[in-house]
Formats: sequence, C-alpha cells, structure tokens
Amino acid sequence: MIITLKKDTPQKEVERLISQFEGYGLRVNIIHGQNWNVFGLVGDTTHLSERDILADEWVTNVQRVQAPYKLTNRMFHPEDTVVDVGGIKIGAGQPIALIAGPCAVEGDEELCRIAEDVKKAGATMLRGGAYKPRTSPYSFQGLGTKGIMYLDHARQLTGMPVVSELMSEDKIDEFEKYVDLVQIGARNMQNYNLLKAVGKMKKPVLLKRGMSATIEEWIMSAEYIIANGNPNVIFCERGIRTFEKYTRNTLDIAVIPIIKEKTHLPIIIDPSHATGNWSLVKPVALAAVAAGADGLIIECHNDPAKAWSDGMQSLKPDNFADLVRDAAKVAEAVGRSL
Amino acid sequence: MIITLKKDTPQKEVERLISQFEGYGLRVNIIHGQNWNVFGLVGDTTHLSERDILADEWVTNVQRVQAPYKLTNRMFHPEDTVVDVGGIKIGAGQPIALIAGPCAVEGDEELCRIAEDVKKAGATMLRGGAYKPRTSPYSFQGLGTKGIMYLDHARQLTGMPVVSELMSEDKIDEFEKYVDLVQIGARNMQNYNLLKAVGKMKKPVLLKRGMSATIEEWIMSAEYIIANGNPNVIFCERGIRTFEKYTRNTLDIAVIPIIKEKTHLPIIIDPSHATGNWSLVKPVALAAVAAGADGLIIECHNDPAKAWSDGMQSLKPDNFADLVRDAAKVAEAVGRSL
Amino acid sequence: MIITLKKDTPQKEVERLISQFEGYGLRVNIIHGQNWNVFGLVGDTTHLSERDILADEWVTNVQRVQAPYKLTNRMFHPEDTVVDVGGIKIGAGQPIALIAGPCAVEGDEELCRIAEDVKKAGATMLRGGAYKPRTSPYSFQGLGTKGIMYLDHARQLTGMPVVSELMSEDKIDEFEKYVDLVQIGARNMQNYNLLKAVGKMKKPVLLKRGMSATIEEWIMSAEYIIANGNPNVIFCERGIRTFEKYTRNTLDIAVIPIIKEKTHLPIIIDPSHATGNWSLVKPVALAAVAAGADGLIIECHNDPAKAWSDGMQSLKPDNFADLVRDAAKVAEAVGRSL
Amino acid sequence: MIITLKKDTPQKEVERLISQFEGYGLRVNIIHGQNWNVFGLVGDTTHLSERDILADEWVTNVQRVQAPYKLTNRMFHPEDTVVDVGGIKIGAGQPIALIAGPCAVEGDEELCRIAEDVKKAGATMLRGGAYKPRTSPYSFQGLGTKGIMYLDHARQLTGMPVVSELMSEDKIDEFEKYVDLVQIGARNMQNYNLLKAVGKMKKPVLLKRGMSATIEEWIMSAEYIIANGNPNVIFCERGIRTFEKYTRNTLDIAVIPIIKEKTHLPIIIDPSHATGNWSLVKPVALAAVAAGADGLIIECHNDPAKAWSDGMQSLKPDNFADLVRDAAKVAEAVGRSL
Repeated sequence: MIITLKKDTPQKEVERLISQFEGYGLRVNIIHGQNWNVFGLVGDTTHLSERDILADEWVTNVQRVQAPYKLTNRMFHPEDTVVDVGGIKIGAGQPIALIAGPCAVEGDEELCRIAEDVKKAGATMLRGGAYKPRTSPYSFQGLGTKGIMYLDHARQLTGMPVVSELMSEDKIDEFEKYVDLVQIGARNMQNYNLLKAVGKMKKPVLLKRGMSATIEEWIMSAEYIIANGNPNVIFCERGIRTFEKYTRNTLDIAVIPIIKEKTHLPIIIDPSHATGNWSLVKPVALAAVAAGADGLIIECHNDPAKAWSDGMQSLKPDNFADLVRDAAKVAEAVGRSL
Repeated sequence: MIITLKKDTPQKEVERLISQFEGYGLRVNIIHGQNWNVFGLVGDTTHLSERDILADEWVTNVQRVQAPYKLTNRMFHPEDTVVDVGGIKIGAGQPIALIAGPCAVEGDEELCRIAEDVKKAGATMLRGGAYKPRTSPYSFQGLGTKGIMYLDHARQLTGMPVVSELMSEDKIDEFEKYVDLVQIGARNMQNYNLLKAVGKMKKPVLLKRGMSATIEEWIMSAEYIIANGNPNVIFCERGIRTFEKYTRNTLDIAVIPIIKEKTHLPIIIDPSHATGNWSLVKPVALAAVAAGADGLIIECHNDPAKAWSDGMQSLKPDNFADLVRDAAKVAEAVGRSL
Repeated sequence: MIITLKKDTPQKEVERLISQFEGYGLRVNIIHGQNWNVFGLVGDTTHLSERDILADEWVTNVQRVQAPYKLTNRMFHPEDTVVDVGGIKIGAGQPIALIAGPCAVEGDEELCRIAEDVKKAGATMLRGGAYKPRTSPYSFQGLGTKGIMYLDHARQLTGMPVVSELMSEDKIDEFEKYVDLVQIGARNMQNYNLLKAVGKMKKPVLLKRGMSATIEEWIMSAEYIIANGNPNVIFCERGIRTFEKYTRNTLDIAVIPIIKEKTHLPIIIDPSHATGNWSLVKPVALAAVAAGADGLIIECHNDPAKAWSDGMQSLKPDNFADLVRDAAKVAEAVGRSL
Repeated sequence: MIITLKKDTPQKEVERLISQFEGYGLRVNIIHGQNWNVFGLVGDTTHLSERDILADEWVTNVQRVQAPYKLTNRMFHPEDTVVDVGGIKIGAGQPIALIAGPCAVEGDEELCRIAEDVKKAGATMLRGGAYKPRTSPYSFQGLGTKGIMYLDHARQLTGMPVVSELMSEDKIDEFEKYVDLVQIGARNMQNYNLLKAVGKMKKPVLLKRGMSATIEEWIMSAEYIIANGNPNVIFCERGIRTFEKYTRNTLDIAVIPIIKEKTHLPIIIDPSHATGNWSLVKPVALAAVAAGADGLIIECHNDPAKAWSDGMQSLKPDNFADLVRDAAKVAEAVGRSL
C-alpha cells in the first residue's frame, strides 16, 4: 500500500503515522519528495481500508498495490478451482455447464415437463426459484418449500442437479438437504449475514453479482463465503444497472477474463437477466462462451406468456435447443466443449 | 394500465387476452387503431407486473397509469404521516430532525462522550452502528450486542432516542427492546425477508435507498414494510452510485420533493454517505434542508482519524455545531425550524 | 403514439388536444376509461417529441408505438445495407471486417510498418488518428494534415482503405479526398452540426456511440447523417460509461443484435476502447464476433509502451495475429468468415 | 506523480524508466520495497497521462498527486474569479445571478414578453436558444440568426445581458457581436475544436457539464478554453445521466463545493435540465442556493404547453417569481443576496 502525505506534514505527524502502521504489523518504507512524503507499507494490508486511512488529515492519497482479497486471489492460488455440483464439474478445463429451467417453480408437473425438455435439449442442471425476490409485495413470492420439493422430484426424475435461490438463513437446512447449488441473488450479494451463513454450508454457492457491485466488491463477497469455510463458490454475472434501459441490465462481458485473471474460481453467465428479452438471449450466450465462460444459466419455459414471472426473458425448449447447438460450435472454436 | 397489441393480432388472441385480464377482476376497454389495438385496464392493477404482461407474444407495450404502490401512495393517503421516534416527531410540519453520532459504536465511554457533544451542538437523536455491513470480511464488523447496550446507556444519559442498523432477523428482539429507530441499510433495501420481518415490528423503520435502486423500487420496499403491518417508515436518501467517483456516491437531491409528492411519508438525508467526505457534508446538508428534507443523519466523531470506520466522512462536534447553526437559518428561510 | 390524459380532463381540453393533433396531420382515436382518456395517434409521429406533448398540463403519459427514426428503421427497409469502404464491403453476409492500426499516427515510417504488420496478420483496413480528442489541452493533439498524408501513404503501400476521426467541419475536404471511412468519435456523437456536415459527404461514416448515449439516441444520430444525404453509416460500439472502473468502459454486447433488429445498417465493435486494457481485447473481440458483429476495430502498435497515446490498450502485431486466428474459428462457428 | 513498478522489474528497465522521466524534465525519487519499486516524480506532470504511463509493461499503478489542470486550479490561483457578463458580475461575493428565459427563442414578440416578465420577477439575465441541439433531425432546430437578432432586441428592450448556445465555429462572429455569455452545451463539452475556438473569443463562456463527464474532465474542458486565451469561464451543472429515469437527469449537488474548492471559477446551476420537470425546479433551485451556487439558469415560458421545446420543464413567470422570493430568503440564510 502506497500512502501519500500532504506537503509540509510535520515531522511528529509523520512519526505518529509510522508507529501507527508499524503497530499494524507492517514495515514502513519512506520516500521524501519536494512536495510530498510517501510511505510504502510492506506486509499483509488486507485488513486495512483505504478510506479509513484517508480519514487522517495528513494523508492525501492511498493506493492499494495488492488486492484486498486473499482466499479468492489467483496470486496465492494459481491453479483453477473446479467446483463439483452434484457430480457435474464446473470450471476451467471442464465442459461448459448448461443450467436451464423456469424462473419460478410453478407446479410439480410443469417443472418435470420443462426439466425433461431442457435435458433433452442439452441442459446438465436444472434451475428454478422456490423463493422469489419480487419488487412488489403483491407479486407472486414463490411456492416456498413445496417448490423445493418439486425440484427434488425433478432431480430424481432426470438425474440433473438443481440450483435455487436462498433468501434467508432460516431455510439453510432445507437447502443443505435438497438443493445442489445454492444461489445468492443479486439483491443479497452484500447481505453479509447470509454470506457468512452459506459460508458454513457444505453445498457449493452460486454468487450472483449485485446490480451495481464493482468487480472488487463482488470478489470480496466471495471472500466472505470462503473465509467462513466454504471454498466452493461460482461467480455468476447477470448484468449491471446502467443508464441504458432498452435491455433490463447491461451484461459486462469483460468480467469473464477479469474474474479468470484475478481469481481461481469459475464464472458462469446469465443472459436471461442480463438482457431481459428472450430474443437477445442466444447472441449474448454465444458471446459469453466465446469470451471463456464456464457455464450458462438460462430461463426456459414451455409457455412463456403464461409464466408466473419473467416469461418475457424465457426461451421455449426448442429455442434453447437451437442455442445449445450453436453454443457447442462456438465452444469448440475456443477449445472447449459443452 | 394501457396495453398495446401488435398490428394484426388475430381476433382470437385479442379475445384470449380480454378474458385473461377479466379473469384478474379487471374491466377491459378496447381501442382499435389502424396499426394497433389498445386495451385500457380499469381496476386494481398493483398485482400485475408490466414485464409479465410483455411476455405475451402479441403485446408490444405496457404503460402503467397508476403507481404500483397503494399504502405508501399519497393519492390514497393525502395527509402527511408523522412518525414518532421515542418522542421525537419526524415529518411535515415538525422540526427538522437532527440525528448525529459515530459510524460505528466503538466503546461505552467514546459513545457517551460524542453523544453529549452532539446533543450540546443541537442533535435530537443519536446514531451508531453496532452491526456493520463491511465490504471486507477482514474489516471491523461492529461490537454487536455490546454496541447496542452502549447505545442504550447513551440514551439513558442524554435522553436522545437511538437509531442503529439491523442486518438480520435474529436480532429483532434486541432491536425491539433497545433501539428506537430501526435502520435498514442500503445493501439490504431489497432483502425482502428482512423487510417483511421489520414490517412486523412495533418500532419505526428508517429505510435507506439502495445504491442503485430506482425511486419506485425504494417506495415498493416501504410498501413491503407497511403491507406487513408497520406503517412507520421514514425514507433516507444516502446517495446513489454513478460514474462519478470524486464523491463516494451522488446525492439525488430531487428525491426530496418527489417522495413528498408520491408518498405521505417523511424523508431524511444522509450527507455523510452521500459525499463520503466531511468537507462536503455541510453544503450538502444545507441543500437538503432547503429542498424540504424532514431530517438529517450525520456521522460525527471526536477523533475522525482514529475512527474504526468512515472517519473520512465524519464531522468533529464543533463542525457539526457550525452546520446546525447554518441549517437553522436555512430551515427558517423555507418556513421550518430545527 | 398513445397519449393518456388526466382523470377529469374537461371536455373542452380534450377537444383542444384533438384539434391540435389533427393539426399535425394525424388521426386521433379516443378511448374513454373510468379513470382516464386515451388518445391513439395514427400517422407519422416521428416529428413529435414525447416530452413536448407531456408539457401539456392535461397529459399524464405518452407512449411511442413506432420508433422516432425512419431512414435507419428496418421496418421500412427490411434488407440489410452493405457499406462499401474503398472496395471492402461491410455488413451482413460479408466477411467480418478487420480494422487495425495505431491510436494516433505518429510518423510515416512507424505507420507504414504497423500497417504492413497488421495486414500480414489479417487486417483489411487501417485505422489511425491524425486529429485526437484529448481530455487535456497539454496532451499530444495529433499530427493533423501530416498524419492524414501518412495514412494516404500507408494506403498506397498496402492497398488497405483507411479510417480516421474527423473532429471539425473545416477538414471535410481533406477527409473527402484522403480518408475512406470518416469516423465520428464518441465525444461528437451529438455534435449535430458535424453530423449534418458528414451527411453531405460522399464517403461512408463510422459513427461511434457516445459514452452515455442510449441506443435510440445513437440511432437518431445516424438518422441525422442519412437525412442529410449520406446513407452509408456504420455503427461502432466502443463501450459505455458505467459505475465500474476496472475497465475503461463497459462494452454493451447486446447492442449487436439490437442494432441488427432495429436498423438495416452494419455494426462493428471496438474492444480496445471498450476495455482500455490490451489483455482483455481478445476475449471481448471473440465475444463480439460470436454475437454477430460485422467487424472489429482494434488498436495495434509495434511498441505500445512508447505509443503517444493509448498504448495501454494496444495489441502488438503478433497478439493481433493470434486474435485473428481465433476470431476466424469463432466466425466460422456462427456461419461467417473473416 | 507516484508510479509503482512490478515486483522483480529488472534493474535495466528501472533505469530505462528513470531516464525516460528525466527526459520529460522531471526529477525521479526512488523507493525500493520488498515487493515493489516506487518512483515519485517531482516537477510539472500536467502533460503526462496516467494511462500512457500504465502502457509500460513494468508499471502496475500510477497515482496523480497534483491535479492535471493549472490555469483553473485554485492552488495556483487562490482568489476567486468574478466574471463580468455585460455588466452583471458572477462569482463569489457577488449577488446570485438569475438567468431566465425560454428554452428556444420562438419569435420576437414572444421573447420580449417573457423577457419583460422574468425581469419583473427578478431575473438579471435572459436565456434563449437560437441554435438547438435536438436528438431528432425532424425536431425544430432553432430560429438561427433570426433568433439571435430577437435576443438582441430583447436586450435593448430590457437591458438584460443575453446567454445563448453556440453549436459551431462558423457562428462565432455572430456570437461575439450579439451574445453576452456564450454557452457551450452538454453535448459539446468535449468538442475540443469548439472549446479552442471559444478560447479565442472575448466574450465569457458558460460551460455546461457533459451528461457523463467526470468533474475532472469538466475542469479540463475549462482548461482548454483558458489555455487558448479566454479566462472568463463559468461552470454550469445541469445534471448527469444515471440509472434513475424519474427525472431527466440527476443533479450532482456536491459539485458546487467541489468546484469552489478545486478551482477559482464561478458555478451556476440549471435545475430545469437537471430535473426535466417544472414542479421540481423550485426545491432544487433552493438547494443549489443553499449549497453555494453563484447563479441559477431557469427555463421560463408564458405558455409551457405550447413551447416548441422543453415546455415540460419550463416555469410560468409567476412560478418563477415565487421561486425568486424564496431563493432570496435562502440566499440571505447563507450570507448572500440575489
């Protein structure tokens, strides 16, 4: 960490700051310039916050040299992490995971039907929301435990592992038992109590990026989970909120290589939420595969117009099958497979 | 709700849609144009989602005429709501509330000292975080229950009601007992389980705006709380995330008159988080008062450089006193008082 | 256009509005609802602005049904436009154009060398800035006319058409004579006088998206050019400005299918400016090809560290060659070629 | 400027970089750390670009200590600049300037009438667009020279100086002759050729902030004007583009104290464009005065519903008069006057 002091900082303040940083177990290198003094802090600075240091009236600038994360940091963990989700391996060197299913679980029969349809089309995992974060308290909030049971049924029927969103700590036992990949939704990406709680789970976690989370904040949320004991985190980019309103969100395609460079964890892409429009899902999904994504999570529904939520961004099974066919070709072009 | 269908929508699809909407208990008015058909839906449409209707392949556009919220809506509740927080009344026609205190509770003695200092300077309520949402798992996470007890002590000492952030449902009993105003932080504004839970509390709620929440989403989160039984909600704007990084966030000053127009609830402003820089707090606070805010919540610390968090945006007590003096003049200029 | 009036709009105001719209040559269809009156306007509404109609105190909502653009609109021009740039055809069904070269032209020899290098690696057109829009007045502003002459020389040497940015009307003759594709930069996307001026040129135009331009505003800028007489417009997405600062901009990958759906014009992608970081250029470029882009424009330099501008995002020729090899495979996977 | 090199940068690269920076006329101070080498550059670094230095493969971080602007920088120019606009002084210690008038000049009679009305209500300057930057080529583009002549007439009639937007260099003579304050619009804030041209004018310049311009970019645009010879620049904040769409833009209220701290130039606020909604103009204008603005520029129209543009955000003269009355009280509260 490089710390710049104000011009004319009195010597006793310089000394106070030195002993403050040495008190944190750091070694302090000093440079005296004509217009400033600079400290280089050597040691583990992950527990220091730039803003807290900037609170000192003699500090004008703080520049972090090392990332504030350790457990997720590729620098300390050069090899790629592969996460096992109910037997399906997700990560570098593995086939690209194809997760598909309805936005919300709507019924046992409906779920089993779409599960079989997407499996036939090439999906390897089933998604479905039983607890739904809805903007309005008057909207359908999900089937709850019943929905989880239907997912369990669909898994038994098709053999596909299931992913579903966990919204509160009091359902952790249920998810530990019945859900193969525990999703933390965008709105809860900085619900730190929930992150700590899933950090104690045995099931892998799918960590969606918050609507306006920076890449570093997102990685820090993964760090929360790993620091609490659960190393099996998969990132999921689902678009960020920008001024552009033609699409529901704006997919940040560059995060794929960035996450691969900064961390050792897998990353998958959700083109359904990123675009909010089924007709854009395929081109964006192909782009994600070309850029190196380890998987895709796609909303599918047999009758989108009748979906209880997000029908607008749901693919019908044959459109999904078409996407899978083309994604396979793009995957091959970049040296991977589905 | 005004729904536009595609040109050449077959008559049987028009009829299907009519009976679908009538099935929701709505009356359907139809307009046939040269290039489109339009439905006007009459009745309560708050439970309908624009996006869900857009999922129908024959629908091209959906325009909501009435807001999707009812309980917070000034249209159905023309008189201003005044919220009583431990004897301090917040809202239209009341003195502007002055809430001050440290970002985080750091110790009993430190808290009592700053509490007395800000009270002397004019504060009417005390803020202090006992549970802190920190980006890094390695940062100080708050004193927890001990911090709440110190707040209780400071209240007994000074008589000021206290506000503190609630981060998870398992602390609700503690907050119901010891905290006068329960803060929901920006990161949890769409943690719907937590919103439902505080909706069942008896204590009033301070609802911070999410970093990238639209005004409508923010109001809908208040609607969650009220719909669950707690009518005492105060909005708190703390800046939104934009491309501009000179300030920590960008204060959306226009929300003050907007919230007043759309809802009947009080709104207060947090210039500390909005700017992230103590030297900007005063001008922004004065602006908020001029624009009609019902209160200010301001971070103060006796020694900001040593604050365990957010010292950079904390005022010293005498700067706070100076702010209060000028805020009183601006309040008077707009027909209010502190 | 669907216009919603306030509840209780007096009959004479309704009639005034009807005759106002009829005065614009439109036919007005009316729907009377319990809570509102709605007008459906039939006819050409491109010259009406939603905001201007909203200025009427009796209007609560305006919803455009038809896009405000005509000449760029695929609805009125279903077949794809292919633009000929000095013999290279750009657009649907054509090979994907590969435009490469330095950010700024730095010298005759340097330019010819990089031109030959990128041509060998697969480029079909040469880029190079002679007039540079720099944030600082103290930064290198480009070689000007001399730079244009070097581009001309490089074209003669390699046979590649050249693209360069035009910043003001007084250089139009120079560009008409020596530049094959006239670039309008992001900062000038809404410099309407310049748009009108290039609309009168004979050379095709590369229209970069403004840093915070909506897709509709971008298309409207193309409409300005075409409406002034120049139908040969190519869109170029170069990333938008968002809260995320790890990359220089955020590439909006979904605009590729959106521009293809809304307009009949070609679209190319600039992964160099979109990411600002050479190590991200290749994955983002492959993503663009997979999503259907008609071309790529990529900054290349023989010695990026010594580039006079934007070295940070410039590829060395052999990295560019590597990109081209992989892009060819991805292009084939989506049924195209380079 | 503080430059951090990679761990293990070879000695010969360190030496190459030192001589490179010394070649720029800078003195280089070196700090050797365990994990990095840091250079402190002493001297004038305004002509260096952080990104250009980052292009060097051995550099990991660049931190600017001194701002990249000089002529606008308060550090080198501690006293406030007051700009004289046709006899009206704008800046610190002066009465708050009240600029009002229609969005677009629509006719001689209409302009004179609104000019007299706003003057009576307290305005000291007249605004009116003769050249209008419109998103659509089919919208009214302004009356051009005729509009400028009407402004001249209104000035003669009322004695108020006039402000109008200049969109291209070929009208500079006209503006030099007839316009007292030359406005550079948001869309042209980085039209550097136009900035250089107005830098050679004798009339003061009102520099609007670009829709997504950072504060630093905005100041750098002022630096362009001053560096070309015109020291009379007034900043005008008119809202920035964010995800929030309820208002047309989001007013960045904190820029008022920031511009005052960083530069010595005046700043005025445009609440009409910032909100896009006449009912929000007054509270936002009062906020601006409370935060320290040196002036307000407000759209007024005698019949907003019939305005040729931006009627939605225009005040009627008596609403403007009401705003002036309250603004005077707020101004007094913060130690100023209108």
